[in-house]
Amino acid sequence: MNLILLEPSDFAEAADVAVLRGRRFQHIVDVHKAEVGDTLKVGALQGQIGEGVVIERGEQHIALAVSLHRAPPPPLPLNLILALPRPKMLKRTIQHATALGVKTLYLINAYRVEKSYWQSPWLAEDKLREQCLLGLEQAVDTTMPAIFLRKRFKPFVEDELPDIAAASRKLVAHPVTDTPCPVDIAEHTTLAVGPEGGFIPYEVEKLQAAGFESVHLGPRILRVETALPVLLARLFPGR
Amino acid sequence: MNLILLEPSDFAEAADVAVLRGRRFQHIVDVHKAEVGDTLKVGALQGQIGEGVVIERGEQHIALAVSLHRAPPPPLPLNLILALPRPKMLKRTIQHATALGVKTLYLINAYRVEKSYWQSPWLAEDKLREQCLLGLEQAVDTTMPAIFLRKRFKPFVEDELPDIAAASRKLVAHPVTDTPCPVDIAEHTTLAVGPEGGFIPYEVEKLQAAGFESVHLGPRILRVETALPVLLARLFPGR
Repeated sequence: MNLILLEPSDFAEAADVAVLRGRRFQHIVDVHKAEVGDTLKVGALQGQIGEGVVIERGEQHIALAVSLHRAPPPPLPLNLILALPRPKMLKRTIQHATALGVKTLYLINAYRVEKSYWQSPWLAEDKLREQCLLGLEQAVDTTMPAIFLRKRFKPFVEDELPDIAAASRKLVAHPVTDTPCPVDIAEHTTLAVGPEGGFIPYEVEKLQAAGFESVHLGPRILRVETALPVLLARLFPGR
Repeated sequence: MNLILLEPSDFAEAADVAVLRGRRFQHIVDVHKAEVGDTLKVGALQGQIGEGVVIERGEQHIALAVSLHRAPPPPLPLNLILALPRPKMLKRTIQHATALGVKTLYLINAYRVEKSYWQSPWLAEDKLREQCLLGLEQAVDTTMPAIFLRKRFKPFVEDELPDIAAASRKLVAHPVTDTPCPVDIAEHTTLAVGPEGGFIPYEVEKLQAAGFESVHLGPRILRVETALPVLLARLFPGR
């Protein structure tokens, strides 16, 4: 937890005093070992980043005097369209994508997404939110990503994707192409990433028909969890 | 397993016939569901990549007629110096680094590396080798990385690192600097990456005294497992 994220309900007692219990309290006590007078890096969810000075430490709660004064890092200019990963990788992928600055994420179906993946309890709204919070706490960011679930590939790509991707550069990561993924592009981008084993030709054709250009990442085949940071670092180095 | 890796001992029966049992046999049967006549992508460990045609399938073994004809992907021009990650992350980190094309990896001590990490059973030579094989199978590569363990920071940096890093660009990933990590450099590079929480100032000074330049990755703080693909994608896009 490189950042303690604060929510509006934490400020029930006063506008500039946050009172924390539960997971964040425990982390501050166990890991930061914070005492009265210590300063912690804090941020208001969807708001600014700053400092919290410990003014009270009880058995079950800790109170911070909060001052916020700088903006969170800018969001990546990106819509990420990601074939739903297997449950084991879903949590990590959501955390990594959030830590990397993804703010708009569509988890979609594809031929090689097993039907059972959609039953994962980690797809519940509160579970996704939990992983996003961990990603923001890691990266020192406060802006929650918006995550959308789309269980049908064809209607999504035909009916919804054109509007989502309008006026953006449209790329699909696909090992079977001669075009390398571009480096350091300034444009707003919509990037589609397939499941393990990749999109099938029909899906790639559908995406191409929607204006998506196939790009590859180099001579190696990477897992989604490795490919994602590589893709984002190439497209937006330093963002 | 995007590539079936073959070892010299697999060719006991004939120079161009590999007989596989155990994990690889099971994977070929369960995942590839390969029958006699099917073709699989194979590679000789430390050698070339090509095809294996199934010529025999038994209850406990499978035989492939092997033809090899293309080189593996080129290695990254990189020495990676990595503070030993926590055991939970070690396996993944070795797999990712291997899949990304790292061929020379020093796992070193640092102040924020907990002593207990060095007791991890995953540091045994055969366990490290296992993770490297998984990385090569994923990435479709055949060249094993060399992994070195260095349990003492100061003698390593003072006595050994100068020779390792000689004639290479020397970079240390360190969030507290104004210099962004360079993009697409052609030079041979030695890159040092700290533990969770980073190198301490003393360690950064030691590395700087050895000619290392501090570079950051942008406004977000990333876990080592996310930072590594990001760093390598910036330094060597498309390699």
